[in-house]
Amino acid sequence: MKEVGSHMKLDVGILGGSGYTGSELLRLLKSHPDVGVRVVTSRKAAGTSIGDFHLHLKGAYTLEFTNVSVEKFKDCDVVFSALPHGTSMEFIPDLLDMGLRVIDLSADYRLEKDVYEATYGITHKGYREAVYGIPELYRDLSIANLIANPGCYPTGAILAAAPLAKEKLIDMVVFDSKSGVTGAGAIPTEFTHFPHISDNIVPYRVVDHRHTPEIKQELWKLGGDFRISFTPHLIPVNRGILTTAHIYLKGPLTSKEVKEVYEEFYNDCFFVRFVSSPSVARVRGSNFCDIGIFGEGEQFVIISAIDNLVKGASGQAIQNMNLMLGLPEQRGLEHLPMFP
Amino acid sequence: MKEVGSHMKLDVGILGGSGYTGSELLRLLKSHPDVGVRVVTSRKAAGTSIGDFHLHLKGAYTLEFTNVSVEKFKDCDVVFSALPHGTSMEFIPDLLDMGLRVIDLSADYRLEKDVYEATYGITHKGYREAVYGIPELYRDLSIANLIANPGCYPTGAILAAAPLAKEKLIDMVVFDSKSGVTGAGAIPTEFTHFPHISDNIVPYRVVDHRHTPEIKQELWKLGGDFRISFTPHLIPVNRGILTTAHIYLKGPLTSKEVKEVYEEFYNDCFFVRFVSSPSVARVRGSNFCDIGIFGEGEQFVIISAIDNLVKGASGQAIQNMNLMLGLPEQRGLEHLPMFP
Amino acid sequence: MKEVGSHMKLDVGILGGSGYTGSELLRLLKSHPDVGVRVVTSRKAAGTSIGDFHLHLKGAYTLEFTNVSVEKFKDCDVVFSALPHGTSMEFIPDLLDMGLRVIDLSADYRLEKDVYEATYGITHKGYREAVYGIPELYRDLSIANLIANPGCYPTGAILAAAPLAKEKLIDMVVFDSKSGVTGAGAIPTEFTHFPHISDNIVPYRVVDHRHTPEIKQELWKLGGDFRISFTPHLIPVNRGILTTAHIYLKGPLTSKEVKEVYEEFYNDCFFVRFVSSPSVARVRGSNFCDIGIFGEGEQFVIISAIDNLVKGASGQAIQNMNLMLGLPEQRGLEHLPMFP
Amino acid sequence: MKEVGSHMKLDVGILGGSGYTGSELLRLLKSHPDVGVRVVTSRKAAGTSIGDFHLHLKGAYTLEFTNVSVEKFKDCDVVFSALPHGTSMEFIPDLLDMGLRVIDLSADYRLEKDVYEATYGITHKGYREAVYGIPELYRDLSIANLIANPGCYPTGAILAAAPLAKEKLIDMVVFDSKSGVTGAGAIPTEFTHFPHISDNIVPYRVVDHRHTPEIKQELWKLGGDFRISFTPHLIPVNRGILTTAHIYLKGPLTSKEVKEVYEEFYNDCFFVRFVSSPSVARVRGSNFCDIGIFGEGEQFVIISAIDNLVKGASGQAIQNMNLMLGLPEQRGLEHLPMFP
Repeated sequence: MKEVGSHMKLDVGILGGSGYTGSELLRLLKSHPDVGVRVVTSRKAAGTSIGDFHLHLKGAYTLEFTNVSVEKFKDCDVVFSALPHGTSMEFIPDLLDMGLRVIDLSADYRLEKDVYEATYGITHKGYREAVYGIPELYRDLSIANLIANPGCYPTGAILAAAPLAKEKLIDMVVFDSKSGVTGAGAIPTEFTHFPHISDNIVPYRVVDHRHTPEIKQELWKLGGDFRISFTPHLIPVNRGILTTAHIYLKGPLTSKEVKEVYEEFYNDCFFVRFVSSPSVARVRGSNFCDIGIFGEGEQFVIISAIDNLVKGASGQAIQNMNLMLGLPEQRGLEHLPMFP
Repeated sequence: MKEVGSHMKLDVGILGGSGYTGSELLRLLKSHPDVGVRVVTSRKAAGTSIGDFHLHLKGAYTLEFTNVSVEKFKDCDVVFSALPHGTSMEFIPDLLDMGLRVIDLSADYRLEKDVYEATYGITHKGYREAVYGIPELYRDLSIANLIANPGCYPTGAILAAAPLAKEKLIDMVVFDSKSGVTGAGAIPTEFTHFPHISDNIVPYRVVDHRHTPEIKQELWKLGGDFRISFTPHLIPVNRGILTTAHIYLKGPLTSKEVKEVYEEFYNDCFFVRFVSSPSVARVRGSNFCDIGIFGEGEQFVIISAIDNLVKGASGQAIQNMNLMLGLPEQRGLEHLPMFP
Repeated sequence: MKEVGSHMKLDVGILGGSGYTGSELLRLLKSHPDVGVRVVTSRKAAGTSIGDFHLHLKGAYTLEFTNVSVEKFKDCDVVFSALPHGTSMEFIPDLLDMGLRVIDLSADYRLEKDVYEATYGITHKGYREAVYGIPELYRDLSIANLIANPGCYPTGAILAAAPLAKEKLIDMVVFDSKSGVTGAGAIPTEFTHFPHISDNIVPYRVVDHRHTPEIKQELWKLGGDFRISFTPHLIPVNRGILTTAHIYLKGPLTSKEVKEVYEEFYNDCFFVRFVSSPSVARVRGSNFCDIGIFGEGEQFVIISAIDNLVKGASGQAIQNMNLMLGLPEQRGLEHLPMFP
Repeated sequence: MKEVGSHMKLDVGILGGSGYTGSELLRLLKSHPDVGVRVVTSRKAAGTSIGDFHLHLKGAYTLEFTNVSVEKFKDCDVVFSALPHGTSMEFIPDLLDMGLRVIDLSADYRLEKDVYEATYGITHKGYREAVYGIPELYRDLSIANLIANPGCYPTGAILAAAPLAKEKLIDMVVFDSKSGVTGAGAIPTEFTHFPHISDNIVPYRVVDHRHTPEIKQELWKLGGDFRISFTPHLIPVNRGILTTAHIYLKGPLTSKEVKEVYEEFYNDCFFVRFVSSPSVARVRGSNFCDIGIFGEGEQFVIISAIDNLVKGASGQAIQNMNLMLGLPEQRGLEHLPMFP
């Protein structure tokens, strides 16, 4: 903690700051009134200033990226890990053992150990218990030491179905999700090459995406066993996930009844907005999750829209940090969506 | 019919040539070896040469757009109507009474009269029986006088599910469709304004799109009553419809068994290609319908990709014309997709 | 002025809040610590809440749009006019006569009266003297009552060439500018219809764009008469103007000398950043103007990148307001660019 | 040469068929009435069928890619090399020595040997004299054995300025060019990663692009020494180069006079179209070069639009082949642009 101007700022560290979730943490934390970024590591960018690597952040930070080592975080109040899955687990146990509080943006702590190993095909080298960090579901994070920040697809899917799941009303749900290309990361591939994905839409991993177990784990925890399927598509959009949840209920409900279930569930949630026409551009750059409710009787179509890099990653991580530190969840995240 | 070079060319007329389906007919028919365009009408563009109105067609035609009147088509062998629904019906009965063969790209002759009136909220002023023109389903068009060219969404949805429907294997299907913006037509609206739809995806008419009755009519005709839902989205793509058909079967089948059902059904169909990774860019500008088959057991995800202006409109209309005239279905439509 | 929490907030009004510059003022002012929006007018949206009209702003304001009338602004400290040119002049003289300070985002007060009338083909109904509001050129705005906020193209062009102009070094400059589609406004046209401009680039008004006199007026005021040409293009981008200034000098200079001229000119300017690779995405959503300097000898290529809705319109208007009110120019505008 | 149906088809080979220019040759040659593709090599794709590698070409060819070796081409009438510069020169001398006629799409034979080596930083291992293949400039190709197919940028730039250059009217020209991303090739890089270039425009190699010497060589050959500058930009478009040529004349001309110069120069050229509003989407997928002429007096803005993969590469290569073989230049290239 450091005195900055008239008040104290908490010290934040970032493990792995060269990717999109890292740069988005840096963008968002810059205007957070209660924290300051003190350390950012990156193998790839070590020795380079933040603004020379992330050109849009030029002038915003005087920090340089440093090599990865847990000792550098010893004076931090909170550490974010924006490392890839499989790598995050190499550092997090040590950070926890140093008494630090950690928010992990990778997949390493989201699933039960055996489910994780089966899903990712990796032996877990440093398993610990973590809180699954969707603050709209788990609001009391004040004593958490390790928060597993959810996947982008699961965030959109779970927020679309959680209220009906909790009331045990769902018979079956088909999640048809469409993600912007930043969801695939900052490293170029044939799949994300502009001429391949521009003017195109491509379904992928149609029946075996690794986010499926995460969606099932959280929704079944809330609402018991029901059939869930999940199909992702890549669309020519930078940011945003639109999740179209085709939900079949166990029995008929009116549109009004379903809306009341959602309004009650999200009653005190700053970032959930109910809208008549959800779309990813209307939440662009913000931490909002817009939800539209359509249907009548036994079938409903519930559509959620998030920015995959904000509510689907770095914004939600900061929201988790706020609650962990006893701050209002929206602190530093109140800026509005940018449209167009 | 006119002698052109060494052989005879049939005379073709187009009612309503100023929109996207009209211009696409003009683009495609220019290289058809057996037909020539003799008349193109347009209220909006009357008196203008085709190349001055559709700038990309500059130099391709010496014709001018003329005002709409049925007499102008009297020497034609076939007439396409690319007029909007509600307007097409004002001219088609007269054309048929003149003995002309007609292919209507509007919705006016796709549905039973009462279903049409309920769906479109219009009293039908000139109802006639028509053949529903998906040539992969109805291949004998040689005696048809009026062909109702299908909607773009129904083409993608029906081709994705027809083989399983015909075998009475489907318990339920959720069609989640994503369309390029040309599907919304050439007239600018707030919805299709670039800054609104670029970098965005927008679901619309979520539970009441007018293509739903058309999909149900054709699939139920093939395969009996089963639950069908349809949800369209607009994506920032010029051309293309990707239809993700989430299909639940009455009982489990292997992936191999399902693939055999599709291969047999589309056995002699030039324009259906089975692919491992369907995407709209891989059929761009062509009349192909690419189909990908995913799943095992009771749930399958069948994905079709078409160009909405070609297989979803003008290309399919020409395919219908070919069969109507006794030509091979692919005549004049053999050019390959343009990628990227 | 109102007491808000611990300190006083100045009252701001907006004339014409339904377009893109209006909604951008609302987005940006929401997080300005020293002002609050009290009145927003719109003929089109009167009676609608801000969040129901601008869907991305849902929940941010409790205000409704009201009909246009100058009386409504009587308690405001500053009024922005985001009305179109020709309409702005109907209200601004009355606002000034009421003693209000006004920032006009239209073209109505940017040019000498006779040049304005010749350029826009309109008789000016309420001419007044105004300060041309590029704060990097005119920093003392504390006594200004009427600020003419510059056009988006002129902002990019003038910032690219001003330092060399001021030193009387320029022999000739060709401005080749590329603008995102929001620059054409929120009202749909054939030109801005998604299928027309997506996957396309279109030059327009090639030798007679109305921003040319504005560019000449300001650069000639700084640096005497030299040849200036300006050619705009529309690109498939939402936000941003990239201006490629091809500059021929009167005599040879080294790259280092030219860079020094720019660094000195923009010495105390928070929003000008010198970069090695300017691009519009790196300033997206922010008030920065990134400048890249290339060349050696007699020919230089100076490239500026701005967000046309921020530095090219509403952000610059707020920057002008800050200086008018004696605040630091960056107050409320410090958020970082959003990339990707 | 093989008998195919009723007539003989010439045998064509392609060296390097896995990139965009290779796949575009395959797309276009498929519908050429007088030639058939017999051999296609690719190190990367050897052993794979064309349709399994280029998914959009599925079903169009029964050929497989083979490893690179010149012997495989011995029965070909013409060979295209779509290999990268530096690699093409390893094979072309042998092909020529075997008596084959060759069209090289790389840069290896476009420049004088010393200029080539200085520009590309490579020692030329197999220099030969070649004809620079812009058929609008050099129409008699019937005796050529080696044609150097021009770069995409030079094609657009040279076609925009050649008529005025030939008349020795130009004092200076600034080429400001904007290219679609396919111009950067099929191999993914950070520069062409979708989130980097989508919703963006990026100038690059601002004063030292390797196409500059090629533009100068050809224009100076036509019109004597005059100042030429060239600045390329990448835009979020798949295909197309728009070249804005800012031309200053030695003395004033009327718009009519300049138009006559162009009409005479391009009098018998099938692929040059004069248009009032040039744009890349209006030539998409075709071999046309649209030219717009703006200005009056001493300054003109001449704008050309081409598809970089067609007129800027593979289409022009086929046009060169046609003339080499004594066929009409438009044979097999008559399909119309695809818009939208």
